[in-house]
Amino acid sequence: MQTVRVALGERAYPIHIGSGLLGHADLVLPHLAARRVAIVSNTTVAPLYLDRVAAPLEAAGVRVTRVVVPDGEAHKDWPTLNLVFDALLGARCDRQTTLVALGGGVVGDLTGFAAATFMRGVPFIQIPTTLLAQVDSSVGGKTGINHPLGKNMIGAFHQPQLVLADVETLNTLPPRELAAGLAEVIKHGLILDARFLEWLEANMERLVARDPEALAHAVRRSVEIKAEIVARDERETGDRALLNFGHTFGHAIEAGLGFGTWLHGEAVGAGMVMAADLSRRLGDLTDADVERVRGLVARAGLPVSAPALGSDRYLDLMSFDKKAQGGKVRFILLKRLGNAYIHADASAARLAETLAACAQAA
Amino acid sequence: MQTVRVALGERAYPIHIGSGLLGHADLVLPHLAARRVAIVSNTTVAPLYLDRVAAPLEAAGVRVTRVVVPDGEAHKDWPTLNLVFDALLGARCDRQTTLVALGGGVVGDLTGFAAATFMRGVPFIQIPTTLLAQVDSSVGGKTGINHPLGKNMIGAFHQPQLVLADVETLNTLPPRELAAGLAEVIKHGLILDARFLEWLEANMERLVARDPEALAHAVRRSVEIKAEIVARDERETGDRALLNFGHTFGHAIEAGLGFGTWLHGEAVGAGMVMAADLSRRLGDLTDADVERVRGLVARAGLPVSAPALGSDRYLDLMSFDKKAQGGKVRFILLKRLGNAYIHADASAARLAETLAACAQAA
Repeated sequence: MQTVRVALGERAYPIHIGSGLLGHADLVLPHLAARRVAIVSNTTVAPLYLDRVAAPLEAAGVRVTRVVVPDGEAHKDWPTLNLVFDALLGARCDRQTTLVALGGGVVGDLTGFAAATFMRGVPFIQIPTTLLAQVDSSVGGKTGINHPLGKNMIGAFHQPQLVLADVETLNTLPPRELAAGLAEVIKHGLILDARFLEWLEANMERLVARDPEALAHAVRRSVEIKAEIVARDERETGDRALLNFGHTFGHAIEAGLGFGTWLHGEAVGAGMVMAADLSRRLGDLTDADVERVRGLVARAGLPVSAPALGSDRYLDLMSFDKKAQGGKVRFILLKRLGNAYIHADASAARLAETLAACAQAA
Repeated sequence: MQTVRVALGERAYPIHIGSGLLGHADLVLPHLAARRVAIVSNTTVAPLYLDRVAAPLEAAGVRVTRVVVPDGEAHKDWPTLNLVFDALLGARCDRQTTLVALGGGVVGDLTGFAAATFMRGVPFIQIPTTLLAQVDSSVGGKTGINHPLGKNMIGAFHQPQLVLADVETLNTLPPRELAAGLAEVIKHGLILDARFLEWLEANMERLVARDPEALAHAVRRSVEIKAEIVARDERETGDRALLNFGHTFGHAIEAGLGFGTWLHGEAVGAGMVMAADLSRRLGDLTDADVERVRGLVARAGLPVSAPALGSDRYLDLMSFDKKAQGGKVRFILLKRLGNAYIHADASAARLAETLAACAQAA
């Protein structure tokens, strides 16, 4: 087991990474406020792993409430959140109850937001079971749900007490979801670590084949990069925005198609190619750089072109993004591979060229 | 104009108290993140005061979105909160938009929670127009909505940038709501300030008659007491619980009758008499003390007896209260008038006596 620490002062917490961690109640017990937890999972993950987490806790004298919600991004919404509140209140959970998110990013974001707002805030623990959640959404304290008019529009910053990333759970992950997680892994290399990017180019086939050693390295390095950025900028007033590389385009794709049609990571995959393309048009990347990005995204099994929604629709969707400030769309772009920056003022002409070049013909 | 400062480090903020403050855009402008606000009010308050706040801001170049929600505690719920989110997103409000709560406690709690969770948190300003909101709910950063299974079960701590308490707005307040506000004023005297309690006993008729000087003093002293406690214990891990004097019984009354049947302050009025009665049974207060509490509550125009819901129902409702820890109900009781403490272990027998003595016969 390896441990990465997220340095956030009194909100600091450890991320344990390893194989077979799920059943280790001893890793969880020191982080509970009381011997009372509610584990939130979904209909796909619960049959595979819920008992493996719950039983050892119960054996240690912890009262466990199980809450199973429907699976999928389409359910990252208020009705599902309310199912969680109903279950917590029905089971008489109190302020000392720790919520445990067992599942992917949707379960983590939803459960984290439930923890942020149940009785004005209770502790929570993340046990991510997808690659996306292990390398990205379980780290950093962003929680929330979607609104029909925008993704993650309702949410809160709420840091977990602990993250348990068990790479064994990735064995049951559908290939499409593995690829979606690899999008965020690639992103971490692109924005901050050219050496890690080279490692990914040398090892992408091992990752797609689920070589456990390669996966553990990718999770660890991703978590280190994300934890470092989050520690510098917990509330996303500065550097943390770099983590949104590919996401302004990606969110527009997700919202335009309707949430849940493309996976978040798939949209980010295409979005990173678009952001690289825009960086080239601004004179920072070379054609060869863009081809390296496109190639790596493709080898991860991700789409490299966006769906044809029309440029006007894309522009409209992007101005709704949370990263829009005072009406202007901020992009995270690349100065070079491994070095991202915040670009506050992309010209409409360059943006239109990227949209025309990267969205599939209708 | 008088100003009380809530000392919360980087989250410190001023409370301005005075007459005719509503139209003073110059008090608001220094606290805006950008020239963009959304004012949330209700169908009762908006026709009276919304333009008076909005017009001077617009004249100063601020873009104002007006959001009017239905009036009443029954609407402190998710559907109403969602109306606010719909309006904010429809008007393309962004992270720099400041939400302004113009109304009573329901508008303040709802708008504060919207501000805590819209795009993971935007700034907000409280302009309370009821006595209850001026002396209590606008100070301290508690925000939230009700759930069918409990009051304020979903919420967050989110401090405002500024509170503007304009006592002129109390002239349009229905008598029942004025009395409800006086409940919290009395509470502040009972828990922490015997001298203020004596002042209230000498001046209750002036307050009920809305003598502006008396009201201003009551608002100011209440806010000082509450601000002091909140500054000591922002997250309610200790002393802040003292502010819940009368509230464990009060919440049970509100929940038992259905939220909105009794006003919050009315339930707290009867709840304070019940808490005083329980304190007497534990040997701390005298019969005369309890009569002083009952007399003051009655002179404020508040109920002094709880509705007859049956002891079992009360006990059931109280164990759902957020103040319940590990199944035990914590009460805030009085050692003497002007001195409250946290009592973690009231015996069921004494509690049953209080419920029998203080709830009206069916």
